[in-house]
Amino acid sequence: MDSPMNSTIETLLSHRSIRSFTEQNITAEQLETILDCGLAASSSTFIQCVSIIRIQQKDSRAKLARYAGGQSYVESCAEFLVFCVDYHRHQDIHPQAQLGFTEQTLIGSVDAAMMAQNCLAAAESLGLGGVYIGGLRNNPQQVTELLALPKHVIPLFGLCLGHPAQNPEVKPRLPKSIVVHQEQYTALDKDVLARYDDQIKNYYATRTDNKKSGAWSDQITKILSKEARPFMQEFLQDQGFNTK
Amino acid sequence: MDSPMNSTIETLLSHRSIRSFTEQNITAEQLETILDCGLAASSSTFIQCVSIIRIQQKDSRAKLARYAGGQSYVESCAEFLVFCVDYHRHQDIHPQAQLGFTEQTLIGSVDAAMMAQNCLAAAESLGLGGVYIGGLRNNPQQVTELLALPKHVIPLFGLCLGHPAQNPEVKPRLPKSIVVHQEQYTALDKDVLARYDDQIKNYYATRTDNKKSGAWSDQITKILSKEARPFMQEFLQDQGFNTK
Repeated sequence: MDSPMNSTIETLLSHRSIRSFTEQNITAEQLETILDCGLAASSSTFIQCVSIIRIQQKDSRAKLARYAGGQSYVESCAEFLVFCVDYHRHQDIHPQAQLGFTEQTLIGSVDAAMMAQNCLAAAESLGLGGVYIGGLRNNPQQVTELLALPKHVIPLFGLCLGHPAQNPEVKPRLPKSIVVHQEQYTALDKDVLARYDDQIKNYYATRTDNKKSGAWSDQITKILSKEARPFMQEFLQDQGFNTK
Repeated sequence: MDSPMNSTIETLLSHRSIRSFTEQNITAEQLETILDCGLAASSSTFIQCVSIIRIQQKDSRAKLARYAGGQSYVESCAEFLVFCVDYHRHQDIHPQAQLGFTEQTLIGSVDAAMMAQNCLAAAESLGLGGVYIGGLRNNPQQVTELLALPKHVIPLFGLCLGHPAQNPEVKPRLPKSIVVHQEQYTALDKDVLARYDDQIKNYYATRTDNKKSGAWSDQITKILSKEARPFMQEFLQDQGFNTK
Protein backbone atom coordinates (compact mmCIF):
# COMPACT_ATOMS: atom_id res chain seq x y z
CA MET A 1 0.00 0.00 0.00
CA ASP A 2 1.22 3.51 -0.72
CA SER A 3 2.09 5.92 2.05
CA PRO A 4 -0.77 8.32 2.78
CA MET A 5 -0.14 11.87 1.56
CA ASN A 6 -1.89 15.20 1.89
CA SER A 7 -0.78 18.82 2.00
CA THR A 8 -0.26 18.81 5.80
CA ILE A 9 2.01 15.76 5.63
CA GLU A 10 3.82 17.28 2.63
CA THR A 11 4.38 20.49 4.62
CA LEU A 12 5.72 18.64 7.67
CA LEU A 13 8.00 16.34 5.66
CA SER A 14 9.56 19.18 3.67
CA HIS A 15 10.61 21.21 6.72
CA ARG A 16 14.07 22.72 6.70
CA SER A 17 15.25 25.71 8.69
CA ILE A 18 15.25 28.97 6.74
CA ARG A 19 17.88 31.55 7.74
CA SER A 20 17.70 33.90 4.75
CA PHE A 21 14.58 35.96 4.08
CA THR A 22 13.30 38.42 1.48
CA GLU A 23 12.15 41.85 2.65
CA GLN A 24 8.49 40.94 2.13
CA ASN A 25 6.29 41.30 5.21
CA ILE A 26 4.06 38.71 6.78
CA THR A 27 0.56 40.20 6.62
CA ALA A 28 -1.38 40.94 9.80
CA GLU A 29 -3.93 38.29 8.75
CA GLN A 30 -1.23 35.67 8.24
CA LEU A 31 0.33 36.43 11.62
CA GLU A 32 -3.05 36.22 13.38
CA THR A 33 -3.70 32.83 11.81
CA ILE A 34 -0.22 31.56 12.67
CA LEU A 35 -0.72 32.59 16.30
CA ASP A 36 -4.23 31.11 16.40
CA CYS A 37 -2.76 27.78 15.27
CA GLY A 38 -0.16 28.04 18.03
CA LEU A 39 -2.77 28.67 20.69
CA ALA A 40 -4.79 25.68 19.49
CA ALA A 41 -2.06 23.26 20.64
CA SER A 42 -2.57 21.01 23.66
CA SER A 43 -1.63 22.22 27.14
CA SER A 44 -0.76 19.96 30.08
CA THR A 45 -3.78 19.91 32.47
CA PHE A 46 -4.84 23.02 30.49
CA ILE A 47 -2.34 25.07 32.52
CA GLN A 48 -1.62 27.41 29.58
CA CYS A 49 1.79 28.52 30.85
CA VAL A 50 3.23 30.06 27.68
CA SER A 51 3.65 33.67 26.61
CA ILE A 52 4.87 34.90 23.24
CA ILE A 53 6.68 38.24 22.94
CA ARG A 54 6.53 39.68 19.42
CA ILE A 55 9.53 41.87 18.66
CA GLN A 56 9.36 44.44 15.88
CA GLN A 57 11.67 47.27 17.07
CA LYS A 58 14.94 47.30 15.15
CA ASP A 59 17.13 48.01 18.16
CA SER A 60 15.59 45.14 20.14
CA ARG A 61 16.09 42.80 17.17
CA ALA A 62 19.75 43.86 16.93
CA LYS A 63 20.29 43.21 20.63
CA LEU A 64 18.58 39.81 20.48
CA ALA A 65 20.64 38.82 17.41
CA ARG A 66 23.76 39.65 19.42
CA TYR A 67 22.58 37.90 22.60
CA ALA A 68 21.92 34.79 20.46
CA GLY A 69 25.56 34.70 19.42
CA GLY A 70 25.44 36.85 16.28
CA GLN A 71 22.52 35.31 14.36
CA SER A 72 21.77 38.05 11.80
CA TYR A 73 18.48 36.50 10.65
CA VAL A 74 16.96 37.55 13.99
CA GLU A 75 17.22 41.05 12.53
CA SER A 76 16.31 40.29 8.92
CA CYS A 77 13.27 38.05 9.37
CA ALA A 78 9.79 39.48 8.91
CA GLU A 79 8.57 38.39 12.35
CA PHE A 80 10.47 37.39 15.48
CA LEU A 81 8.60 35.69 18.29
CA VAL A 82 10.09 34.80 21.69
CA PHE A 83 8.40 31.83 23.36
CA CYS A 84 8.48 32.02 27.14
CA VAL A 85 7.52 29.63 29.91
CA ASP A 86 5.17 31.82 31.95
CA TYR A 87 3.89 31.03 35.45
CA HIS A 88 3.72 34.72 36.35
CA ARG A 89 0.06 34.92 35.46
CA HIS A 90 -0.67 31.86 37.60
CA GLN A 91 1.09 33.46 40.56
CA ASP A 92 -0.88 36.64 39.85
CA ILE A 93 -4.17 34.70 39.92
CA HIS A 94 -3.11 32.54 42.89
CA PRO A 95 -0.35 34.21 44.96
CA GLN A 96 0.01 31.08 47.14
CA ALA A 97 0.70 28.88 44.10
CA GLN A 98 3.14 26.08 44.92
CA LEU A 99 5.52 26.13 42.00
CA GLY A 100 8.50 23.84 41.78
CA PHE A 101 11.47 23.37 39.52
CA THR A 102 11.81 20.22 37.45
CA GLU A 103 8.21 19.36 36.70
CA GLN A 104 7.33 23.01 36.15
CA THR A 105 10.24 23.32 33.71
CA LEU A 106 9.23 20.16 31.86
CA ILE A 107 5.58 21.20 31.50
CA GLY A 108 6.47 24.71 30.39
CA SER A 109 9.02 23.54 27.82
CA VAL A 110 6.67 20.95 26.38
CA ASP A 111 3.73 23.38 26.16
CA ALA A 112 5.86 26.14 24.59
CA ALA A 113 7.41 23.79 22.03
CA MET A 114 4.03 22.38 20.95
CA MET A 115 2.65 25.90 20.54
CA ALA A 116 5.69 27.01 18.55
CA GLN A 117 5.67 23.93 16.34
CA ASN A 118 2.04 24.64 15.41
CA CYS A 119 3.03 28.23 14.53
CA LEU A 120 5.88 27.02 12.33
CA ALA A 121 3.76 24.38 10.59
CA ALA A 122 1.04 26.95 9.89
CA ALA A 123 3.64 29.40 8.54
CA GLU A 124 5.22 26.73 6.33
CA SER A 125 1.79 25.77 4.99
CA LEU A 126 1.50 29.41 3.80
CA GLY A 127 4.80 29.23 1.92
CA LEU A 128 6.74 30.97 4.70
CA GLY A 129 9.82 29.56 6.43
CA GLY A 130 11.55 29.88 9.74
CA VAL A 131 14.19 28.80 12.22
CA TYR A 132 14.23 28.35 15.99
CA ILE A 133 16.71 30.41 18.00
CA GLY A 134 17.73 28.45 21.10
CA GLY A 135 20.76 30.74 21.25
CA LEU A 136 18.64 33.22 23.25
CA ARG A 137 19.58 31.02 26.21
CA ASN A 138 23.22 32.05 25.75
CA ASN A 139 22.30 35.27 27.53
CA PRO A 140 19.02 34.61 29.31
CA GLN A 141 19.45 37.44 31.83
CA GLN A 142 19.93 40.09 29.14
CA VAL A 143 16.96 38.76 27.15
CA THR A 144 14.87 38.83 30.32
CA GLU A 145 15.78 42.46 31.00
CA LEU A 146 15.18 43.57 27.42
CA LEU A 147 11.73 41.94 27.32
CA ALA A 148 10.91 43.06 30.89
CA LEU A 149 10.06 39.50 31.90
CA PRO A 150 8.90 39.31 35.52
CA LYS A 151 9.68 36.51 37.98
CA HIS A 152 8.37 33.08 36.98
CA VAL A 153 8.87 33.79 33.28
CA ILE A 154 11.83 32.45 31.28
CA PRO A 155 12.67 33.05 27.61
CA LEU A 156 12.92 29.56 26.09
CA PHE A 157 13.65 30.15 22.39
CA GLY A 158 12.90 32.50 19.53
CA LEU A 159 11.29 31.80 16.18
CA CYS A 160 12.25 33.71 13.03
CA LEU A 161 9.55 33.74 10.33
CA GLY A 162 9.53 35.24 6.84
CA HIS A 163 9.51 34.64 3.12
CA PRO A 164 12.39 32.28 2.20
CA ALA A 165 15.27 33.68 0.14
CA GLN A 166 16.95 30.27 0.05
CA ASN A 167 15.88 26.73 -0.71
CA PRO A 168 18.09 24.36 1.30
CA GLU A 169 17.84 20.58 1.08
CA VAL A 170 16.01 18.65 3.80
CA LYS A 171 18.66 17.34 6.25
CA PRO A 172 18.55 13.56 6.80
CA ARG A 173 17.40 12.59 10.30
CA LEU A 174 18.56 9.65 12.41
CA PRO A 175 16.93 6.54 10.93
CA LYS A 176 13.58 5.53 12.37
CA SER A 177 15.05 2.17 13.38
CA ILE A 178 17.28 4.06 15.84
CA VAL A 179 14.69 6.55 17.14
CA VAL A 180 11.63 4.28 17.34
CA HIS A 181 11.79 1.27 19.67
CA GLN A 182 9.28 -1.58 19.94
CA GLU A 183 7.91 -2.36 23.43
CA GLN A 184 11.23 -1.66 25.19
CA TYR A 185 14.39 0.37 24.71
CA THR A 186 16.90 -1.22 22.36
CA ALA A 187 20.59 -0.44 22.26
CA LEU A 188 22.05 1.74 19.52
CA ASP A 189 22.83 -0.28 16.37
CA LYS A 190 26.36 0.85 15.51
CA ASP A 191 26.13 -0.40 11.92
CA VAL A 192 23.02 1.67 11.27
CA LEU A 193 24.71 4.63 12.96
CA ALA A 194 27.82 4.25 10.75
CA ARG A 195 25.67 4.32 7.63
CA TYR A 196 23.87 7.41 8.93
CA ASP A 197 27.20 9.09 9.69
CA ASP A 198 28.22 8.50 6.05
CA GLN A 199 24.92 9.91 4.86
CA ILE A 200 25.38 13.09 6.93
CA LYS A 201 28.99 13.49 5.78
CA ASN A 202 27.78 13.29 2.21
CA TYR A 203 24.91 15.73 2.90
CA TYR A 204 27.26 18.38 4.34
CA ALA A 205 29.80 17.91 1.54
CA THR A 206 27.28 18.29 -1.27
CA ARG A 207 24.65 20.73 0.05
CA THR A 208 24.33 24.06 -1.72
CA ASP A 209 24.79 26.45 1.20
CA ASN A 210 27.23 26.31 4.10
CA LYS A 211 29.23 23.23 3.11
CA LYS A 212 30.98 21.53 6.03
CA SER A 213 32.52 18.21 6.87
CA GLY A 214 32.03 15.59 9.55
CA ALA A 215 29.67 12.85 10.60
CA TRP A 216 26.80 13.27 13.06
CA SER A 217 28.77 11.35 15.71
CA ASP A 218 31.63 13.85 15.34
CA GLN A 219 29.24 16.78 15.84
CA ILE A 220 27.76 15.18 18.95
CA THR A 221 31.19 14.50 20.39
CA LYS A 222 32.17 18.13 19.84
CA ILE A 223 28.93 19.60 21.21
CA LEU A 224 29.02 17.46 24.34
CA SER A 225 32.72 17.94 25.10
CA LYS A 226 31.60 20.57 27.59
CA GLU A 227 28.32 21.03 29.42
CA ALA A 228 25.84 23.28 27.57
CA ARG A 229 24.89 26.50 29.37
CA PRO A 230 25.73 25.38 32.94
CA PHE A 231 24.37 28.75 34.19
CA MET A 232 20.76 27.86 33.28
CA GLN A 233 19.93 26.30 36.63
CA GLU A 234 20.96 29.43 38.54
CA PHE A 235 19.11 31.62 36.04
CA LEU A 236 15.90 29.67 36.59
CA GLN A 237 16.36 29.94 40.33
CA ASP A 238 16.84 33.71 40.00
CA GLN A 239 13.56 33.83 38.07
CA GLY A 240 11.79 32.20 41.00
CA PHE A 241 11.84 28.55 39.93
CA ASN A 242 12.65 26.99 43.27
CA THR A 243 14.77 23.91 43.63
CA LYS A 244 14.25 22.47 47.06
CA MET B 1 -8.64 40.99 4.19
CA ASP B 2 -9.77 37.48 4.97
CA SER B 3 -7.74 35.16 7.19
CA PRO B 4 -5.65 32.76 5.14
CA MET B 5 -6.97 29.18 5.18
CA ASN B 6 -5.76 25.83 3.94
CA SER B 7 -6.14 22.25 5.07
CA THR B 8 -3.08 22.37 7.38
CA ILE B 9 -4.40 25.45 9.18
CA GLU B 10 -7.86 23.89 9.34
CA THR B 11 -6.35 20.74 10.90
CA LEU B 12 -4.38 22.70 13.50
CA LEU B 13 -7.29 24.99 14.44
CA SER B 14 -9.73 22.12 14.89
CA HIS B 15 -7.55 20.20 17.38
CA ARG B 16 -9.24 18.74 20.41
CA SER B 17 -8.02 15.85 22.51
CA ILE B 18 -9.67 12.53 21.66
CA ARG B 19 -10.04 10.04 24.51
CA SER B 20 -12.51 7.60 22.97
CA PHE B 21 -11.54 5.46 20.02
CA THR B 22 -13.14 2.90 17.70
CA GLU B 23 -11.49 -0.51 17.38
CA GLN B 24 -10.17 0.32 13.89
CA ASN B 25 -6.41 0.01 13.50
CA ILE B 26 -3.99 2.59 12.25
CA THR B 27 -2.37 1.04 9.16
CA ALA B 28 1.36 0.37 9.05
CA GLU B 29 1.66 2.92 6.24
CA GLN B 30 -0.18 5.58 8.26
CA LEU B 31 2.02 4.96 11.28
CA GLU B 32 5.22 5.16 9.20
CA THR B 33 4.10 8.49 7.75
CA ILE B 34 3.11 9.85 11.18
CA LEU B 35 6.56 8.91 12.54
CA ASP B 36 8.33 10.35 9.49
CA CYS B 37 6.56 13.67 10.10
CA GLY B 38 7.71 13.55 13.73
CA LEU B 39 11.31 12.94 12.78
CA ALA B 40 11.20 15.86 10.33
CA ALA B 41 10.82 18.35 13.20
CA SER B 42 13.66 20.68 14.18
CA SER B 43 16.26 19.60 16.73
CA SER B 44 18.36 21.96 18.84
CA THR B 45 21.91 22.03 17.38
CA PHE B 46 20.76 18.84 15.59
CA ILE B 47 21.35 16.91 18.82
CA GLN B 48 18.47 14.47 18.10
CA CYS B 49 17.93 13.49 21.72
CA VAL B 50 14.48 11.87 21.47
CA SER B 51 13.41 8.25 21.42
CA ILE B 52 9.91 6.93 20.88
CA ILE B 53 8.82 3.63 22.41
CA ARG B 54 5.85 2.08 20.61
CA ILE B 55 3.75 -0.08 22.91
CA GLN B 56 1.46 -2.74 21.51
CA GLN B 57 1.43 -5.47 24.18
CA LYS B 58 -1.84 -5.51 26.09
CA ASP B 59 -0.30 -6.08 29.49
CA SER B 60 2.13 -3.20 29.03
CA ARG B 61 -0.74 -0.95 27.95
CA ALA B 62 -2.72 -1.94 31.03
CA LYS B 63 0.22 -1.16 33.30
CA LEU B 64 0.87 2.20 31.62
CA ALA B 65 -2.82 3.12 31.89
CA ARG B 66 -2.59 2.42 35.62
CA TYR B 67 0.74 4.26 36.09
CA ALA B 68 -0.85 7.29 34.36
CA GLY B 69 -3.55 7.40 37.03
CA GLY B 70 -6.19 5.17 35.45
CA GLN B 71 -6.48 6.58 31.94
CA SER B 72 -8.28 3.75 30.12
CA TYR B 73 -7.71 5.20 26.62
CA VAL B 74 -4.03 4.22 26.98
CA GLU B 75 -5.40 0.68 26.60
CA SER B 76 -8.10 1.32 24.01
CA CYS B 77 -6.23 3.53 21.52
CA ALA B 78 -4.91 1.99 18.29
CA GLU B 79 -1.34 3.17 18.90
CA PHE B 80 0.43 4.29 22.05
CA LEU B 81 3.78 6.05 21.73
CA VAL B 82 5.99 7.07 24.66
CA PHE B 83 8.21 10.07 23.92
CA CYS B 84 11.48 10.00 25.84
CA VAL B 85 14.32 12.46 26.29
CA ASP B 86 17.29 10.29 25.30
CA TYR B 87 20.96 11.16 25.87
CA HIS B 88 21.89 7.51 26.27
CA ARG B 89 22.92 7.20 22.64
CA HIS B 90 25.10 10.31 22.97
CA GLN B 91 26.83 8.84 26.00
CA ASP B 92 27.24 5.62 24.05
CA ILE B 93 28.89 7.50 21.16
CA HIS B 94 30.92 9.75 23.47
CA PRO B 95 31.41 8.21 26.94
CA GLN B 96 33.07 11.41 28.23
CA ALA B 97 30.04 13.53 27.25
CA GLN B 98 29.49 16.38 29.69
CA LEU B 99 25.78 16.28 30.32
CA GLY B 100 24.10 18.65 32.74
CA PHE B 101 20.66 19.09 34.22
CA THR B 102 18.62 22.17 33.42
CA GLU B 103 19.74 22.94 29.87
CA GLN B 104 19.74 19.26 28.97
CA THR B 105 16.19 18.93 30.32
CA LEU B 106 15.01 22.02 28.43
CA ILE B 107 16.51 20.90 25.10
CA GLY B 108 15.18 17.38 25.45
CA SER B 109 11.67 18.50 26.39
CA VAL B 110 11.51 21.00 23.54
CA ASP B 111 12.79 18.52 20.95
CA ALA B 112 10.45 15.75 22.12
CA ALA B 113 7.42 18.05 22.15
CA MET B 114 8.09 19.35 18.64
CA MET B 115 8.47 15.80 17.34
CA ALA B 116 5.27 14.68 19.05
CA GLN B 117 3.30 17.69 17.86
CA ASN B 118 4.27 16.89 14.27
CA CYS B 119 3.09 13.30 14.81
CA LEU B 120 -0.25 14.49 16.19
CA ALA B 121 -0.77 17.03 13.40
CA ALA B 122 0.00 14.39 10.76
CA ALA B 123 -2.40 11.96 12.45
CA GLU B 124 -5.15 14.57 12.66
CA SER B 125 -4.67 15.42 8.98
CA LEU B 126 -5.50 11.74 8.27
CA GLY B 127 -8.75 11.94 10.24
CA LEU B 128 -7.26 10.32 13.32
CA GLY B 129 -7.28 11.84 16.81
CA GLY B 130 -5.21 11.66 19.96
CA VAL B 131 -4.38 12.85 23.43
CA TYR B 132 -1.11 13.42 25.28
CA ILE B 133 -0.54 11.47 28.49
CA GLY B 134 1.64 13.56 30.83
CA GLY B 135 0.32 11.33 33.62
CA LEU B 136 3.15 8.87 32.82
CA ARG B 137 5.22 11.18 35.01
CA ASN B 138 3.06 10.20 38.00
CA ASN B 139 5.12 7.01 38.17
CA PRO B 140 8.27 7.67 36.17
CA GLN B 141 10.30 4.93 37.86
CA GLN B 142 7.75 2.21 37.05
CA VAL B 143 7.46 3.42 33.44
CA THR B 144 11.25 3.40 33.18
CA GLU B 145 11.45 -0.18 34.42
CA LEU B 146 8.65 -1.42 32.17
CA LEU B 147 10.23 0.15 29.08
CA ALA B 148 13.77 -0.88 30.13
CA LEU B 149 14.99 2.70 29.77
CA PRO B 150 18.72 2.97 30.55
CA LYS B 151 20.43 5.87 32.34
CA HIS B 152 20.14 9.24 30.58
CA VAL B 153 16.68 8.42 29.25
CA ILE B 154 13.46 9.76 30.80
CA PRO B 155 9.86 9.06 29.76
CA LEU B 156 8.35 12.52 29.12
CA PHE B 157 4.78 11.83 27.96
CA GLY B 158 2.69 9.38 26.00
CA LEU B 159 0.55 9.93 22.93
CA CYS B 160 -2.63 7.92 22.28
CA LEU B 161 -3.66 7.78 18.62
CA GLY B 162 -6.65 6.18 16.95
CA HIS B 163 -9.91 6.64 15.08
CA PRO B 164 -12.16 9.03 17.07
CA ALA B 165 -15.34 7.64 18.62
CA GLN B 166 -16.30 11.07 19.94
CA ASN B 167 -16.51 14.56 18.50
CA PRO B 168 -15.88 17.03 21.32
CA GLU B 169 -16.02 20.79 20.90
CA VAL B 170 -12.79 22.76 20.57
CA LYS B 171 -11.97 24.20 24.02
CA PRO B 172 -11.52 28.00 24.09
CA ARG B 173 -7.91 29.04 24.78
CA LEU B 174 -6.69 32.08 26.72
CA PRO B 175 -7.24 35.12 24.47
CA LYS B 176 -4.35 36.10 22.22
CA SER B 177 -4.26 39.51 23.89
CA ILE B 178 -3.17 37.74 27.11
CA VAL B 179 -0.74 35.24 25.56
CA VAL B 180 0.90 37.47 22.93
CA HIS B 181 2.79 40.56 24.12
CA GLN B 182 4.21 43.37 21.96
CA GLU B 183 7.90 44.24 22.47
CA GLN B 184 7.83 43.64 26.23
CA TYR B 185 5.90 41.64 28.81
CA THR B 186 2.60 43.22 29.79
CA ALA B 187 0.71 42.51 33.00
CA LEU B 188 -2.35 40.26 32.99
CA ASP B 189 -5.52 42.19 32.06
CA LYS B 190 -7.98 41.11 34.75
CA ASP B 191 -11.03 42.23 32.76
CA VAL B 192 -10.03 40.09 29.79
CA LEU B 193 -9.32 37.21 32.19
CA ALA B 194 -12.77 37.59 33.80
CA ARG B 195 -14.46 37.37 30.40
CA TYR B 196 -12.36 34.29 29.56
CA ASP B 197 -13.32 32.70 32.88
CA ASP B 198 -16.99 33.20 31.99
CA GLN B 199 -16.37 31.69 28.56
CA ILE B 200 -14.74 28.57 30.07
CA LYS B 201 -17.52 28.20 32.67
CA ASN B 202 -20.03 28.26 29.85
CA TYR B 203 -17.97 25.80 27.77
CA TYR B 204 -17.82 23.25 30.61
CA ALA B 205 -21.53 23.66 31.43
CA THR B 206 -22.71 23.15 27.87
CA ARG B 207 -20.24 20.70 26.31
CA THR B 208 -21.56 17.32 25.27
CA ASP B 209 -19.19 15.04 27.18
CA ASN B 210 -17.85 15.30 30.71
CA LYS B 211 -19.75 18.38 31.87
CA LYS B 212 -18.11 20.21 34.75
CA SER B 213 -18.19 23.59 36.44
CA GLY B 214 -15.67 26.26 37.24
CA ALA B 215 -13.66 29.01 35.60
CA TRP B 216 -10.09 28.62 34.31
CA SER B 217 -8.78 30.65 37.26
CA ASP B 218 -10.47 28.20 39.65
CA GLN B 219 -8.80 25.25 37.91
CA ILE B 220 -5.40 26.91 38.10
CA THR B 221 -5.84 27.71 41.77
CA LYS B 222 -6.73 24.08 42.46
CA ILE B 223 -3.92 22.59 40.37
CA LEU B 224 -1.27 24.83 41.91
CA SER B 225 -2.40 24.45 45.51
CA LYS B 226 0.36 21.87 45.84
CA GLU B 227 3.57 21.39 43.90
CA ALA B 228 3.21 19.07 40.92
CA ARG B 229 5.31 15.89 41.05
CA PRO B 230 7.99 17.11 43.48
CA PHE B 231 9.80 13.78 43.01
CA MET B 232 10.77 14.57 39.40
CA GLN B 233 14.07 16.21 40.28
CA GLU B 234 15.27 13.18 42.20
CA PHE B 235 14.04 10.87 39.44
CA LEU B 236 16.07 12.77 36.84
CA GLN B 237 19.10 12.62 39.08
CA ASP B 238 18.63 8.87 39.46
CA GLN B 239 18.56 8.62 35.67
CA GLY B 240 21.96 10.32 35.50
CA PHE B 241 20.94 13.93 34.91
CA ASN B 242 23.43 15.61 37.20
CA THR B 243 22.66 18.74 39.15
CA LYS B 244 25.88 20.26 40.36
